[in-house]
Amino acid sequence: MTVLYGAAYYAEYHRPEQAGQLDRDLDLMQQAGFTVIRVGESVWSTWEPRDGEFDLDWLLPVLDGAHQRGIKVILGTPTYAVPPWLQQAYPEIAADKPDGRPVAWGGRQEVDYSHPAFRFHAERVIRAVIARYAEHPAVIGYQVDNEPGLLLFHNHGAFTRFVRRLKQQYGDVETLNREWGLTYWSHRIADWSELWRPEGNTLPQYDLAWRRYQADLTTEFIAWQADLVRSYARPGQFVTTCISYPRPAADDHALANTLDVTAGNPYYAMQDHLDATQDLPTLSGWTTSGIAGLFRQADRLYSSRQERFLVTETNAQSIDGSWNNRPPWPGQLRQAAFALISRGASMIEYWHWHTLPYGTETYWGGVIPHSLQPGRIYREVAEIGNQLKDLDLDGFEPDTDVALLWSNPSNWALQFFPPLATSDGKPDPASYERIFDAYHRGVIDAGAQARILHLTQATELGAQALAEKHPVLIAPALYVADDAELELLRDYAAAGGHLVLGIRTGYGDEEARARIAVAPAILGEPAGVHYDEYSNLSAPIEVSGDLTGAATGWIDGLIVDDAETVARYTHPRFGEFPAVTTTSHGAGRITTVGTVPDNQLATAIVHWLVPDKTADELLPERSLPVTVSSGTLKDGRRAWFLFNWSWDEISVKRATGESITLPSWGTHLLLE
Amino acid sequence: MTVLYGAAYYAEYHRPEQAGQLDRDLDLMQQAGFTVIRVGESVWSTWEPRDGEFDLDWLLPVLDGAHQRGIKVILGTPTYAVPPWLQQAYPEIAADKPDGRPVAWGGRQEVDYSHPAFRFHAERVIRAVIARYAEHPAVIGYQVDNEPGLLLFHNHGAFTRFVRRLKQQYGDVETLNREWGLTYWSHRIADWSELWRPEGNTLPQYDLAWRRYQADLTTEFIAWQADLVRSYARPGQFVTTCISYPRPAADDHALANTLDVTAGNPYYAMQDHLDATQDLPTLSGWTTSGIAGLFRQADRLYSSRQERFLVTETNAQSIDGSWNNRPPWPGQLRQAAFALISRGASMIEYWHWHTLPYGTETYWGGVIPHSLQPGRIYREVAEIGNQLKDLDLDGFEPDTDVALLWSNPSNWALQFFPPLATSDGKPDPASYERIFDAYHRGVIDAGAQARILHLTQATELGAQALAEKHPVLIAPALYVADDAELELLRDYAAAGGHLVLGIRTGYGDEEARARIAVAPAILGEPAGVHYDEYSNLSAPIEVSGDLTGAATGWIDGLIVDDAETVARYTHPRFGEFPAVTTTSHGAGRITTVGTVPDNQLATAIVHWLVPDKTADELLPERSLPVTVSSGTLKDGRRAWFLFNWSWDEISVKRATGESITLPSWGTHLLLE
Amino acid sequence: MTVLYGAAYYAEYHRPEQAGQLDRDLDLMQQAGFTVIRVGESVWSTWEPRDGEFDLDWLLPVLDGAHQRGIKVILGTPTYAVPPWLQQAYPEIAADKPDGRPVAWGGRQEVDYSHPAFRFHAERVIRAVIARYAEHPAVIGYQVDNEPGLLLFHNHGAFTRFVRRLKQQYGDVETLNREWGLTYWSHRIADWSELWRPEGNTLPQYDLAWRRYQADLTTEFIAWQADLVRSYARPGQFVTTCISYPRPAADDHALANTLDVTAGNPYYAMQDHLDATQDLPTLSGWTTSGIAGLFRQADRLYSSRQERFLVTETNAQSIDGSWNNRPPWPGQLRQAAFALISRGASMIEYWHWHTLPYGTETYWGGVIPHSLQPGRIYREVAEIGNQLKDLDLDGFEPDTDVALLWSNPSNWALQFFPPLATSDGKPDPASYERIFDAYHRGVIDAGAQARILHLTQATELGAQALAEKHPVLIAPALYVADDAELELLRDYAAAGGHLVLGIRTGYGDEEARARIAVAPAILGEPAGVHYDEYSNLSAPIEVSGDLTGAATGWIDGLIVDDAETVARYTHPRFGEFPAVTTTSHGAGRITTVGTVPDNQLATAIVHWLVPDKTADELLPERSLPVTVSSGTLKDGRRAWFLFNWSWDEISVKRATGESITLPSWGTHLLLE
Repeated sequence: MTVLYGAAYYAEYHRPEQAGQLDRDLDLMQQAGFTVIRVGESVWSTWEPRDGEFDLDWLLPVLDGAHQRGIKVILGTPTYAVPPWLQQAYPEIAADKPDGRPVAWGGRQEVDYSHPAFRFHAERVIRAVIARYAEHPAVIGYQVDNEPGLLLFHNHGAFTRFVRRLKQQYGDVETLNREWGLTYWSHRIADWSELWRPEGNTLPQYDLAWRRYQADLTTEFIAWQADLVRSYARPGQFVTTCISYPRPAADDHALANTLDVTAGNPYYAMQDHLDATQDLPTLSGWTTSGIAGLFRQADRLYSSRQERFLVTETNAQSIDGSWNNRPPWPGQLRQAAFALISRGASMIEYWHWHTLPYGTETYWGGVIPHSLQPGRIYREVAEIGNQLKDLDLDGFEPDTDVALLWSNPSNWALQFFPPLATSDGKPDPASYERIFDAYHRGVIDAGAQARILHLTQATELGAQALAEKHPVLIAPALYVADDAELELLRDYAAAGGHLVLGIRTGYGDEEARARIAVAPAILGEPAGVHYDEYSNLSAPIEVSGDLTGAATGWIDGLIVDDAETVARYTHPRFGEFPAVTTTSHGAGRITTVGTVPDNQLATAIVHWLVPDKTADELLPERSLPVTVSSGTLKDGRRAWFLFNWSWDEISVKRATGESITLPSWGTHLLLE
Repeated sequence: MTVLYGAAYYAEYHRPEQAGQLDRDLDLMQQAGFTVIRVGESVWSTWEPRDGEFDLDWLLPVLDGAHQRGIKVILGTPTYAVPPWLQQAYPEIAADKPDGRPVAWGGRQEVDYSHPAFRFHAERVIRAVIARYAEHPAVIGYQVDNEPGLLLFHNHGAFTRFVRRLKQQYGDVETLNREWGLTYWSHRIADWSELWRPEGNTLPQYDLAWRRYQADLTTEFIAWQADLVRSYARPGQFVTTCISYPRPAADDHALANTLDVTAGNPYYAMQDHLDATQDLPTLSGWTTSGIAGLFRQADRLYSSRQERFLVTETNAQSIDGSWNNRPPWPGQLRQAAFALISRGASMIEYWHWHTLPYGTETYWGGVIPHSLQPGRIYREVAEIGNQLKDLDLDGFEPDTDVALLWSNPSNWALQFFPPLATSDGKPDPASYERIFDAYHRGVIDAGAQARILHLTQATELGAQALAEKHPVLIAPALYVADDAELELLRDYAAAGGHLVLGIRTGYGDEEARARIAVAPAILGEPAGVHYDEYSNLSAPIEVSGDLTGAATGWIDGLIVDDAETVARYTHPRFGEFPAVTTTSHGAGRITTVGTVPDNQLATAIVHWLVPDKTADELLPERSLPVTVSSGTLKDGRRAWFLFNWSWDEISVKRATGESITLPSWGTHLLLE
Repeated sequence: MTVLYGAAYYAEYHRPEQAGQLDRDLDLMQQAGFTVIRVGESVWSTWEPRDGEFDLDWLLPVLDGAHQRGIKVILGTPTYAVPPWLQQAYPEIAADKPDGRPVAWGGRQEVDYSHPAFRFHAERVIRAVIARYAEHPAVIGYQVDNEPGLLLFHNHGAFTRFVRRLKQQYGDVETLNREWGLTYWSHRIADWSELWRPEGNTLPQYDLAWRRYQADLTTEFIAWQADLVRSYARPGQFVTTCISYPRPAADDHALANTLDVTAGNPYYAMQDHLDATQDLPTLSGWTTSGIAGLFRQADRLYSSRQERFLVTETNAQSIDGSWNNRPPWPGQLRQAAFALISRGASMIEYWHWHTLPYGTETYWGGVIPHSLQPGRIYREVAEIGNQLKDLDLDGFEPDTDVALLWSNPSNWALQFFPPLATSDGKPDPASYERIFDAYHRGVIDAGAQARILHLTQATELGAQALAEKHPVLIAPALYVADDAELELLRDYAAAGGHLVLGIRTGYGDEEARARIAVAPAILGEPAGVHYDEYSNLSAPIEVSGDLTGAATGWIDGLIVDDAETVARYTHPRFGEFPAVTTTSHGAGRITTVGTVPDNQLATAIVHWLVPDKTADELLPERSLPVTVSSGTLKDGRRAWFLFNWSWDEISVKRATGESITLPSWGTHLLLE
C-alpha cells in the first residue's frame, strides 16, 4: 500500500471570478501525484447559512472531480468554526476566560464545545453533512472537528460539572481537604459549593485536576462526534481528528483511542532551522525547530496509538503570520515528507492547496501561491508525489534504539509548577518538554532512533515485556506518577532493562504532591543514590568524566549509596555531587542523570547507552548533518531513509564499502 | 512675511501665589522675539466649572497683555479634556475599549467624540468661548481640539453606525460575504445584525474597514468643530487642529483638507539622537530619532496639503515622562527650528512656555523651568527668536530631489498584517514605516531632499504631471491600492518618470486582499520581473553589485523576465534572486528593490537615482554630519540651510571655493 | 539575654499518615537549639471550619510539646487567609482591582481588610483564638495578621472613605483644586462627588494622597488587631506583625509604632548572590541580592523603631517558586543569621520548619526537606542554634558610621513618577530604591556601617541632636518634603553635621509638586550650588577628580555658586557641570552629588566622608570579600562579627597584629 499524498483543499475559498479553477486545481493535483484531499471542515456557515437551513450540494463537484481523477477524500465535520448566526443567538456558548469573560467571536474555536446549546447545533450539522456524502465513493474517511483543545473552558456549566466530578471522585469534602492539602492557607471547604473557581487558584493539586478534566472534555467531545459519524459511515471508512500536540486541553493518547487512526498536524520551522550546523530557537509554540524536533513530532504521533499515523496537515510552504514567511530551501520539503514517513506516517497531506487571498491565514502558504499559478513549491511537491507512487511501505514499523517515557499529566503539572526558568528568570511552562527534548535530541544527534511510550502504555505492557521490547528506557521528569508506575520502572530494570532516570522522576505522586520520602522515591534504593536538595542553575556547568558536556537548568544533589559515578560537575559546590551514576539492578541496570544534559552530554549519554545503533548496519560512520531512519516492512525487508541536513554535498560510505552521494538537502531511499 | 514664533502658554497653570507672573512671562516672551502664543485648549472645567455655567473672562488679561506686546494668539477649543462634571453625568461618553469596558477618566482624550451627549456639551462650550473672543484683535486663528485620533471607539453607537456604513457601502450581505471572503472560517453572515464586533476580529478586510471608519470619525469631528468656529471667525482668521501623525485614528490628508492650514506637533529625540555619528532607537512612539526622522516629520507635515504648515508644538526642552529627561545639547534647538522651517514650517511654537509644577506633564520641559527663572534654554530660544525677526521667507517652497509615495490605508493594513518582525520575532506593527523610512533616510543621508506625496495626491496630479514635477518617485509598501492606482504608477514611468518599487507594492488590492495575479500585479510586466515566493530574514544579508549594503527583514524572490540586475544577494539560496533590477519603460524607467534596504544600500540607491542633487550647487562635496536643505522664495531666490549634526567644528567648501565653518551643532543660513 | 532562634511551624500541614511527627519535629528542634516557634497564623478554616463554629484545641499539643522542651511560642492571628465559607457568603470583601473587578479567591490576602464584613468575622476568630491560648505558659507574644499591605483596595467603600478624608483634609473643593493643580487638563471639580476613581488617574498629587491613604488603612487595621489582642494578653507578652518591607500599602514606621516590637521577613538571594566577587540582579521583588542588600534589610528593620527587632521569617533553604531553587552554599546560613544579628536582630526564625508536600509553596524550602528526614540544612541550622545558646547580646546596639535618610512618601511619589528608566527605557518604579541603595551599598562596600533614619525620626530628633548623634548624614531622593524638613537638613549642617545631598532632594514639596524655586530649594544656597536643568543617562559616564567612578541614570546640571568641585564628568556637555561639590556651612558642611553614583563612586564618596570607620579599630586593612559588623552591649563591651563572603579562605590581620583565618563563607565572632 502506498503512502497517501495530498492537501487540504478549499475550493469554496476561491474568489468567484476564478471560473474553472476547480478543474485546473484537480488536474494539477493529479499531475503532482496527489491521492487524497481533505475537504469541508471549515465552513459551517456555508453548509448551514441560516439556522436550520442547509446547503449541502456545493461540495459535490469537488468530490466528483476528485473521484474522476482517482483522488480520495477525507470529509471533515465543520464544528471548529461556528457560524455568526449561532454565536449571535447563543452568546452563552462562547468559551469563558478564567475571569469569566467570554472569548470574543471573530476567529475560530471560540466556543465551549461541552455546552449543550453548541452540541445541539453541532449534531444537526454533522448529521446533515455526513448523511449527504457518506455514500460518495471518493470518501475514505472522516475528520471530526479540527485541532481540538485550544482553550480551557471556564464556563459556569463546565465548572459546575467539574465540582460534581470531584464529588464523585473524592466522595466527601474531608477526603478532598486531605488529598489536596486544603488546610494550607485556609482552603479547607465544608461544602462542595465552597470550591473556588480556577481564576484565583494557586494550588497545584487543584490545577492538575482541572487540566485532567479539561482534557477529558475534549476526549468526550471527539468521541461523541466520532460515534455520530460512525452511525453513517460505510465499512472501511475511518474516523479521526487532527491533533495539534501542543494544545493545552488535549490528551493525545486518550483522544486517539476513541478514533480509528491517529492523525496530526506536525508543523516545523524550515530554512536554517533544519540546518544541522545551526541551533535556532523555535519561532512559535506550535512548530518545532531543528531536525530532532521534526522527528520528535513524528515519534509523538506514533506514540499516541503505537502505530502508523496520518499527517493531516504540514507545511506546504511558509506557514505562519505575515511577518514570518520562511519558504523551504530547495529539497527540504522532500526531507520533511520522508522524515515523517520514515517514522510512521502513512499519509502526507499539505496544508493547503492554494494560498488564500483573504482571511486570517492569508500568509499561510499553500502548494500554489496567491497567483494560483504553480511555481517552485508545486514543482517540488509534484516530484515527491511522483516518487511516492512507486513506494510501497506495507506494514512498515519504524525501528527503535531507545525508548522514552512520556506523561501528559507530568507535562500539565510542570506547566503549573515548572522546575526550570526561562533565560530571564521567569517560570518556564515548557520545562517538561525541555527536559524530555534534551534526551530525544540526544537520541537523534547520536544517530539513533527513538520510540516514545506513554507511561500508561508502558504500564499496560508490563515490566517483562517492556524490558524485552525496549532494552533502553529513558524516564525524564515523570513528576506525576503513582506507586505502581514507579514500581514498574524498578521492575523493568530488574527484568533486564536499562532504565535511565532524569530529574523530577520519582519526586511527585499522582496528585502532583511532593512525596514524603527520600528522593527519588521507590527508585532511589535500586538506583543506589538519593538526594535531599537540588538547585537551579543560571548558567551551564561543565560536566566531565566518562561522559562530557554541560549541566543546564537544574542539579540534583545526588548522594551515592551504591552506584558508580560516570560523570561529575566542575564546580566548588556541585562538584560534591555526581552528574551521572549507574548501577546494576537485578538483570538490568539503572542510570541516574542528576541534571538536564546539554546536547553534547545528552548525545554522549545515548552513545554510552546504545553503542550499536540500527543504522550502523547501513552507514557505520555517519554523523550529523547526515541522519538515517529505518523501519521494517511486513515482508521483513528494511527500508532506509538517508538525509543530508546541510547546504554541502556529502558522500557517505556504506558498511558494504560503496559510497552514496547526498546532495545539499538531499534525501535518499534504499529498500533492501 | 516672517515665520511665526512662540509657545503654548498656560497662564492658568501658574500657582496662585505667583502674583505678577503673567506680565513677567509676556515681557520675557517679547524679549525672546515671540510673535505668537496658543492658549485655552486644555481647561474646559475652567471655562465651564459647572454644567452650563461659564466663566469666560479669565483669559482676557492674557489676550490683552499679548496684544499690547504685539504677540498674536491662536485660541483653542477645549474639547480634548472633558470636565469631571460631564464624565460624572454621562459616563456613556467614555470611549469603550475593544472588550466593551470604558476607558477610565483621569487623563484626557478618554471620550468617544462621536457620541451625541459629548457633542451637545462640546458645541455649547465651543460657541461660548469662540463667541467671547473672536473679535479680540490678538486672535489670528483657532485650533479645534488637540491631537485627535488617540483611540478607536468601540462604543455601541459607533459600532452600530459602522454596520450601517457597511450596509450603505456594500448594499447587501452577499456582497460583503464575497468581498471580504467571509466563507473563510465560517464567517458568512445572513443578516447585518450578525456582524461580529471588532474585539475578536481576525480578518484583515474587516480591520481595514474599521480603521477607515475610525479615521473618518475623526475627520468628521474636526470638520464639525471647524464649521462651528468659522461661524464666529473674522475674515483672515484660520482654523486648524494640531495633528499628531502617529495617532491611530487620524488620516492627516483628509483631516487637513477640512481645515485652512496644516498644523502639527513634531516631537523628536534630542542629544545624541541628533548625532549623525550615532544610530539610536526611538524612545517613544510619538517621537522620532535621528536627523532623517526630524526631517521626515516636516516632510509629512508638508505632505498633508502639499503646502507650508504650522508647528503648533515641538520640544522646548526635554519632553517626556519623569524618567526620560533629555534637554538638547547647546545649538540643537536652533537646528531643529531651522530644519523644520527649511522643509516648510511657517510657525514654530514650543510646547510650552513654563514647566508645570503639578500634573501628568510635570516633566514635559518648558522654555522656562520649574523655578520660572529664565535659564539656558530661554537664552537659546531667545537667540532663535531674534534671528527669525529678520528672516523673510515669503512664498517659500522647499526643494525636492526625490518624491516618495505615502498611503495611510497601507499603513493601517500592515499594522494588522505586518510583513516584518521585531527583533524578538513578534509582528512589527511599525513595518510600513520601517520600509518607508528606509528610503526616506536614504534620501537624507545621501544629501538629497524629499517630498512626500499621498497616493491620492499623486492620483489627482495624473501620470504626466507627476513625471514632470517629480522625475524620481519611490513607491514602497503600497499594499492597499486599487488597479487605477497601480496603473498610475505604470503610466508615470511610461511618461518619463523613474519609478522605484519597494516590497509589497502591487501585492494587495483596495480591500487589502492579496491579489490573484503574478506579483507585483500590473507593475511586474513593465518592471520586467515577477516573483511567486518571498522570505523574511532574521539577520541582514550582504548585497553586492553596482549598489552595496545589506538586505533586511524581507526578500522577494525576484525572477527577471526583462530587466537588468543592479545588485545581488550573497547567500546560497537568495543569491539566485536579484536584489535590485532596472529596466526602461516607455519614456521612463522602473527599478525594483526586492528587500528593505539597510541604510548603506538605501543611500547607495538614492545616489544612483539622483546623481545630481539640488544642494550640490552650493556644497558639492558635503556629507554627513553636514546636511543642507533649501527652498525657493516667491521672488525666485533660494534659501540655504546648513547644519552640522555633531560635536566637531566642520569646515565645508562652497562650489564657489569659499569655506564656511560650522561650529559644533551649528546652523548656517544663506539667502541668495 | 540570648537571641531567640527557631522557625515557623505548621504541624497542621503534615499529611495525616505522618503519625508521631509532632514529637519527632519538636525533638529535632530542641536538638538544634530552637527556643521559639511561630504557629497558627495561616489556617482560619481550621480554627473555624464553618461560619461561627470553632475548633480551637488542635493547637494544644503543639504548645504543650513546645513548652515541655523549653521552646517558646509566638501565636498568630489567622486573618491573612480567609476561609472559603467567608468568601462564598460575602464576595464583596474581595479586594477590588483598579478596574473595579475583584481579586479572585484562591491564594491568600485577597480581601479588603478595611471592609466591615471582613472585620466582623476577623474580630470573632481573633477573640476566640487568643482567648483560648493567652494563658498558655509557652506563649511569649503574638503576631497579628501577616505581611499586610499587599494590595491597594479599590473597593467602593474604601474609595468613598478616601473622598471623605480629602474633604476633611482640604475642607473644600477649591482648596483641593488649588493644591492638586486641578486646573490642569480640566480636572477641577465642583463637588466632592465628581472626584474620579484611581483607575484612570494620571496626576501625581492624587496618587500620593491615595498611597498615603492606603498605607494608613493598613496601619489602622494592624492597630485594631493589636488592641484586640492586647485585651487578652498577659503582661510581658508582646504584639507585633511581620512586615514585608516591599509591600506597596505599608508604612513600616507608622506600622511599627502601633506595635510593641518591630518584626519583619528579610528574604535574600543566596549562592553566588552573596559572593562579593559577583554582582547579580535580584531574582524577585521581595528578595535582595548581594551582601549590602542583606545588611540593608536589617538596617531597614532597625530603622522602623530605631531599636532591635525580630526576624519572623527568613530563608531556611531555597525560597521561591519551583523554578528558582537556590539552597545556600555551606556556611551562608550562618553568615546571614549573624549578619542580621549584628545589625540588631534579637530573634532569627526560619520560614519554615518542614518543606510542604502540597500547596502554593511546595518549593519554599524548610529546615527539613520533603522527606522529613533532617539533612544538610538541618545540620547547619543546628550548628548555628547551638552557637547561639552561648551568645548573650543583652542591650546590643549596632554601631553606625554613616546615617541615611529614608522617606516612604518619596518612595511612593517616585514609583508614580520615577526619575530613572529601566535598561529598556521604561519608567523604573524602583528608582527611589536604586538611588538610596547606591549610597547604602557604598557604605557597606567601603567597610562602614549604616543607620537608616526615617525623615520623620530625624525631624523628631532635631538638628542639634541629629548632628551630634550622626556626624555624616546622606539625604538621597527626598522628593517629598515640606519646608520644615528641608530646613532641618540645612540646620543639621549648620549645627556641625556633614550633609550629603543626592539627586531629587529639595525638588518636590509635601504634595509631590515640583517646587517653584531654584533647585535644590532651601538647600541650594547653603550648598553653594543650583541647577535649572537635568538629564537622564542611557549609559554610565566616567567621573574623575578627587573621587572616581561613574555617573549613572541621571545628572543634575549643577552650577557652582560658592562651593568646591570634588569630581567632574568626562563628557562634551556634562563636563561643564561638577559631579560632586562640597562647601562648609555653619559648623558643618554640605556635599552635593549630582548623579546616581555607581558602586565605585559611591564607595569612594563614603571613604572620603568617613576616613575612619568603627571597624578599623579591629581590622584596619580589611576589604571585600571581608566585612565586619559591630555593636556595643549594655555593659559597654563591643561585639565584632567578621564575614568572608567568598569561596576562598582568607587571612586577616588584627590591629593588634594577630591573624584571623576566615574559611570559605566563614563567620567569626569576637566579644571584647
